[in-house]
Amino acid sequence: MAEQRKLRVGMVGGGGPANFFGAPHRRAILMDNSAELTAGALRSDPQGSLEAARELFFTRGYPDYQTMFREEGNLPAQERIDYVTIVTPNDSHYPIAKAALETGIAVLCEKPLTITLDESLDLVRLARQTNLPFTVAYSYTGLPMVMLARELVRQEEVGNIRKVEAWYPQGWLAGRTEDEGVQQAQWRVDPSRAGASGCGGDIGTHAYEFIRFVAGLSAVQVQARLHTFAPGRRLDDDFTVLARLSNDGIATIAASQVTIGAQNDNGFRVIGDKGTVEWTMLDHMSLRLFKSGQPVQIFRLGAEYGYFPASIAPYLRLPSGHPEGFHEALANLHKTIQLQIRRRNGEHVPEPFPHPDVIDGAAGMAFIEAAVRSSENDGAWTDVQPVE
Amino acid sequence: MAEQRKLRVGMVGGGGPANFFGAPHRRAILMDNSAELTAGALRSDPQGSLEAARELFFTRGYPDYQTMFREEGNLPAQERIDYVTIVTPNDSHYPIAKAALETGIAVLCEKPLTITLDESLDLVRLARQTNLPFTVAYSYTGLPMVMLARELVRQEEVGNIRKVEAWYPQGWLAGRTEDEGVQQAQWRVDPSRAGASGCGGDIGTHAYEFIRFVAGLSAVQVQARLHTFAPGRRLDDDFTVLARLSNDGIATIAASQVTIGAQNDNGFRVIGDKGTVEWTMLDHMSLRLFKSGQPVQIFRLGAEYGYFPASIAPYLRLPSGHPEGFHEALANLHKTIQLQIRRRNGEHVPEPFPHPDVIDGAAGMAFIEAAVRSSENDGAWTDVQPVE
Amino acid sequence: MAEQRKLRVGMVGGGGPANFFGAPHRRAILMDNSAELTAGALRSDPQGSLEAARELFFTRGYPDYQTMFREEGNLPAQERIDYVTIVTPNDSHYPIAKAALETGIAVLCEKPLTITLDESLDLVRLARQTNLPFTVAYSYTGLPMVMLARELVRQEEVGNIRKVEAWYPQGWLAGRTEDEGVQQAQWRVDPSRAGASGCGGDIGTHAYEFIRFVAGLSAVQVQARLHTFAPGRRLDDDFTVLARLSNDGIATIAASQVTIGAQNDNGFRVIGDKGTVEWTMLDHMSLRLFKSGQPVQIFRLGAEYGYFPASIAPYLRLPSGHPEGFHEALANLHKTIQLQIRRRNGEHVPEPFPHPDVIDGAAGMAFIEAAVRSSENDGAWTDVQPVE
Amino acid sequence: MAEQRKLRVGMVGGGGPANFFGAPHRRAILMDNSAELTAGALRSDPQGSLEAARELFFTRGYPDYQTMFREEGNLPAQERIDYVTIVTPNDSHYPIAKAALETGIAVLCEKPLTITLDESLDLVRLARQTNLPFTVAYSYTGLPMVMLARELVRQEEVGNIRKVEAWYPQGWLAGRTEDEGVQQAQWRVDPSRAGASGCGGDIGTHAYEFIRFVAGLSAVQVQARLHTFAPGRRLDDDFTVLARLSNDGIATIAASQVTIGAQNDNGFRVIGDKGTVEWTMLDHMSLRLFKSGQPVQIFRLGAEYGYFPASIAPYLRLPSGHPEGFHEALANLHKTIQLQIRRRNGEHVPEPFPHPDVIDGAAGMAFIEAAVRSSENDGAWTDVQPVE
Repeated sequence: MAEQRKLRVGMVGGGGPANFFGAPHRRAILMDNSAELTAGALRSDPQGSLEAARELFFTRGYPDYQTMFREEGNLPAQERIDYVTIVTPNDSHYPIAKAALETGIAVLCEKPLTITLDESLDLVRLARQTNLPFTVAYSYTGLPMVMLARELVRQEEVGNIRKVEAWYPQGWLAGRTEDEGVQQAQWRVDPSRAGASGCGGDIGTHAYEFIRFVAGLSAVQVQARLHTFAPGRRLDDDFTVLARLSNDGIATIAASQVTIGAQNDNGFRVIGDKGTVEWTMLDHMSLRLFKSGQPVQIFRLGAEYGYFPASIAPYLRLPSGHPEGFHEALANLHKTIQLQIRRRNGEHVPEPFPHPDVIDGAAGMAFIEAAVRSSENDGAWTDVQPVE
Repeated sequence: MAEQRKLRVGMVGGGGPANFFGAPHRRAILMDNSAELTAGALRSDPQGSLEAARELFFTRGYPDYQTMFREEGNLPAQERIDYVTIVTPNDSHYPIAKAALETGIAVLCEKPLTITLDESLDLVRLARQTNLPFTVAYSYTGLPMVMLARELVRQEEVGNIRKVEAWYPQGWLAGRTEDEGVQQAQWRVDPSRAGASGCGGDIGTHAYEFIRFVAGLSAVQVQARLHTFAPGRRLDDDFTVLARLSNDGIATIAASQVTIGAQNDNGFRVIGDKGTVEWTMLDHMSLRLFKSGQPVQIFRLGAEYGYFPASIAPYLRLPSGHPEGFHEALANLHKTIQLQIRRRNGEHVPEPFPHPDVIDGAAGMAFIEAAVRSSENDGAWTDVQPVE
Repeated sequence: MAEQRKLRVGMVGGGGPANFFGAPHRRAILMDNSAELTAGALRSDPQGSLEAARELFFTRGYPDYQTMFREEGNLPAQERIDYVTIVTPNDSHYPIAKAALETGIAVLCEKPLTITLDESLDLVRLARQTNLPFTVAYSYTGLPMVMLARELVRQEEVGNIRKVEAWYPQGWLAGRTEDEGVQQAQWRVDPSRAGASGCGGDIGTHAYEFIRFVAGLSAVQVQARLHTFAPGRRLDDDFTVLARLSNDGIATIAASQVTIGAQNDNGFRVIGDKGTVEWTMLDHMSLRLFKSGQPVQIFRLGAEYGYFPASIAPYLRLPSGHPEGFHEALANLHKTIQLQIRRRNGEHVPEPFPHPDVIDGAAGMAFIEAAVRSSENDGAWTDVQPVE
Repeated sequence: MAEQRKLRVGMVGGGGPANFFGAPHRRAILMDNSAELTAGALRSDPQGSLEAARELFFTRGYPDYQTMFREEGNLPAQERIDYVTIVTPNDSHYPIAKAALETGIAVLCEKPLTITLDESLDLVRLARQTNLPFTVAYSYTGLPMVMLARELVRQEEVGNIRKVEAWYPQGWLAGRTEDEGVQQAQWRVDPSRAGASGCGGDIGTHAYEFIRFVAGLSAVQVQARLHTFAPGRRLDDDFTVLARLSNDGIATIAASQVTIGAQNDNGFRVIGDKGTVEWTMLDHMSLRLFKSGQPVQIFRLGAEYGYFPASIAPYLRLPSGHPEGFHEALANLHKTIQLQIRRRNGEHVPEPFPHPDVIDGAAGMAFIEAAVRSSENDGAWTDVQPVE
């Protein structure tokens, strides 16, 4: 491999002690020794932000993201950050991503992309206008077995898709976790910070993205039921959707935060007229392919397996049997945006995998918005606004 | 154990070479050496019926069920069959069960109970009037781990039930199996023989019965989508229902016959505010109980385990680790009706487990009928007629 | 299918309340409606034996096996039992089987065949001389997935066999179960009734038979360690053997009765130079085939799967996904001896599968005897007497 | 958390394109943003070594380890590397580790520690004399579920240990992989580079360390069979050991490199008189605890679970359900040596977990040496030299 400089990465959010996403993204950024933590506006209070940047060994700390983008924007290109990672609560994704794009900085943003569809569509517009790389961290799409599922579908191993089932049960909000001082829970059940759907926005979007990413299909109409089980909670903690798909197939999307015992057991089953492909995070290193009357085929994670196509090979790190997981998946999304940036810079690097981008982020919001409207309308069929 | 006579069992249907259910029920009847194959009207043509009875070693063969009930009814009580097992296609369940009850003979009938709700309600009425035992062969409720799930729910291990998920995917009708000379497929996709729903009637009822049997709840309203994927098929081969439950909880019932690779992988998850209990036939000898923050508990099949309550103990046959399965489950339903009959006869036998009866059979039909109407109405919320 | 009479089956032992094997064998005999419980000498005390036969609905009861064979031998051929099932403790297998053969009656005998190798060799001699069918109930060889493993090996799916691993852990003798009034435990830890090895004879033989049945190989030399963990127990409760195989490969045979949590979790892995085939009773309906660099192939139980060869097809009873288990496995061994008997009688029936016979029973004893000697000699390599 | 400087890490080896261990260790070092890649002597040729250090962003590159230690030793303490990571083939572990210790630099070394027991004992002596931290990278001991197994054993959940089973099957050397240009294979089958045992040294040591680390026991005597299946290979590719343990229990250690289909499926089962604890990398995020007659308990990975004791909590990174794996395990070993170094430096950090140290490394060599001698002596019982 030719010599490469490390890319310079900025981060907004992720410096507080209760932030879940900051540390995993830092691990993902550092994992491949290909990027460095350059600029951070890591907390909402300016002093804390500067301290966090110093403690976390960022090269440059900033009191807030506005200052960060202004000052980074003024740096010469060979010093400026190459992209920014946004790991704040949902409601601030939009202004931060907007500011980044307007400064000319590529974006890797946590999901859901924004808290309204309009905001998302504005980001789509801006990303197109600036032509900057924009990755949305539907993190599970970075898992190689999920990537392989996509490729098997594209190789027509399952034939024409009839039905997609996608699910994401959790149990951590079965009780009133938000009253127990769990900061993660507090903002996630607050409509002003999380958006119009709690469970749907937080994890339903992950399940829906499996349909887009693996099956290559979109919902055109939904029947949805958003339900709140925990007494007094203001957002849904259970999210059930039946969808008509763009190819006339159907899909079920089931997400829940009150399934005691479920961890983050998301997965999917893509059912075609020639076969079925199935994956669950509970057995994250396997992918199951079913054909009528034949032995089940289990593909397994492992850099040495020839059945991974060239599009995935650069994203594999370990020989088979050695568990790779969530950090590697996140690192794969960072790899994708890094490869995009390096290509723009003229470096000879492998082709990036088509991981979710700003369109997928906006499509997730369109889906959530339609689900919220359907549920408010007692489950009536409701159109999903196309995002292209 | 006190000495017992063998019970005398009749069978209608089940003698043809393509009949799936006859042989398993015969194995179930013979399994515990407590009953004998006494009277058979085993095929639709009279001559074949007599031949089948002889070849299958029934004590008495009959040309048709009408003759059978007439002649059995004329026998002295100590020679007459104690109950009849009905394993014909769905459309004849009603007249046969009716004739049995009118002759004073108890019934064990395959599901779905009938092809219309009205027929089912008539059987409920007749069963009440005659006060005869009536078991409906929702066979999976005979599996001891499913029975244990019911008991754990009743012992409040999961607390107040919020949500029930029940599923039953199969893949055998993914293609036009009915055109390949598979008799099982032919009548199941014919509305005049199978009823108004193909997939729903055949296997959706099983999934729904988990909600009644394990969770002890009923659907009061449904949103349903019945879908036909195989071109030209006249009945649904995919069945998706969202239900409001009698306790204000919700349920999803998902059945499919086009999920290539799925075998008969039914199961359920009962989610309460204190825990979740989960079972799947893919791991049929285990039952999983989840409590927040605690290790998962896996109960396993085995006659020696003290955690099976007295209500289940008589239904266990083997020490742990030795697979018991479908035949034993069917035999357990026969055991229940046999215990009911023996109790009526004054024998001292263990208390029968409350396996599904005619009410459950009718409730299944009420559910299917509501689902069909909802689906015809593009998924509108539709009331389920209460059956009590 | 042409009309067939039911075969007449005798049983010795199996009538006591604590006998484990009697009831499963009766279920197996009755399962396919092809045989009847004709003659029983079911308990060691004559009066109890007669009572048990009556309570269990045997046509003819006898006070003891000697009387049974004498009187059955005097019956005309068309009334006499066709074969006898021996389910007594180990020490009486030999005299009973001997008496049966000398009376001209075929034998299905529980394992281990006898308590000494000499006894076993005498039965081999007698079986040859009388040319009577003789099945040894290594019950797990009756499981279709185990049968399929044998066929895959014969079809050279794994190539030349290098190594076989066979295991059978249990935990029920971790404590001094024999002091708790458990009759099953009492005779199994008594050398005069169980033979020279407790764990080895009871379950090590099962593991060893996998090597013979599935891999088609025999041990020629063993290093063994028989260990007793429960204080004061007179026989081994743990059994570890390394073997040199007849093809210069090696094998490990590990059995234990003190592995708390293990149920009857036997299994095997046959490792060749082209692939590996693996089965475990914990996932009894699957068989795994591994080839280098390819997806794992999982074969699953189900009468409709075309990958079961004609040799196994008659032994399948249910469509896929419906658990068949231990009773069906036992029934398959009975089916084999029944097919052998029917063929001798000139009936046109499918070819019986080569389930374990008296040779395999004797080979098991040769293996145990060598293991005992090796262990007594501190694990020295010890020859296994060939049995052919 | 108080502010901390990043530790400075050196690396010897790991810079070649075919080196397996370099990249994972670099990911592990970088993972927690607590250490930096400071000094590298990464390849065997001086020029390549300098280039690799530059390409991999090491602060200082060296042509060879001798130069590295000499120059680092001459730097002031506040610039010198804090510890060195050794990821060369086995034969050079000894001289490199020796040189590090003699320079006053702590060591994290890949396993097996050396290629002879004498070398290992010399490192034990030197480590004691210099009192420097020394971690041996039995990487699987860094997995939190394995750490929890150790703690459950120490909390007497399984009672007195009777037997330990440890295993590590692989299949990658089933063919003559070393002839296919696979560098990893070439040195591993060369006695001059890998040591006296191929399979035993490479992976048998991992299995043996489970006995030491989880069960807290050592082998005192072994019966071993080292076998070579691939024609013409000079070292064993299959390794089977029966051991007498320090507490009079027994153990089996089974490792193989020819088990086609096995990936790196290591695991263990610790069997006591009160329970059994079991772990396998195939289900790496679960730990199973068995007690007689009780439901199986499954502990699962997840930072939020209260059942992880304080000793493990600092080693957890993600909420449950998010797969952590091999890189995190390696990072945990680095964390342990880093915590040891920080404590020596007076920083207030959590107590390091007792991960394997130089004693464990030497004990592994003593085990291998005894196994080689036993196998050469046709499996005779052979004493294992105690290492304390």
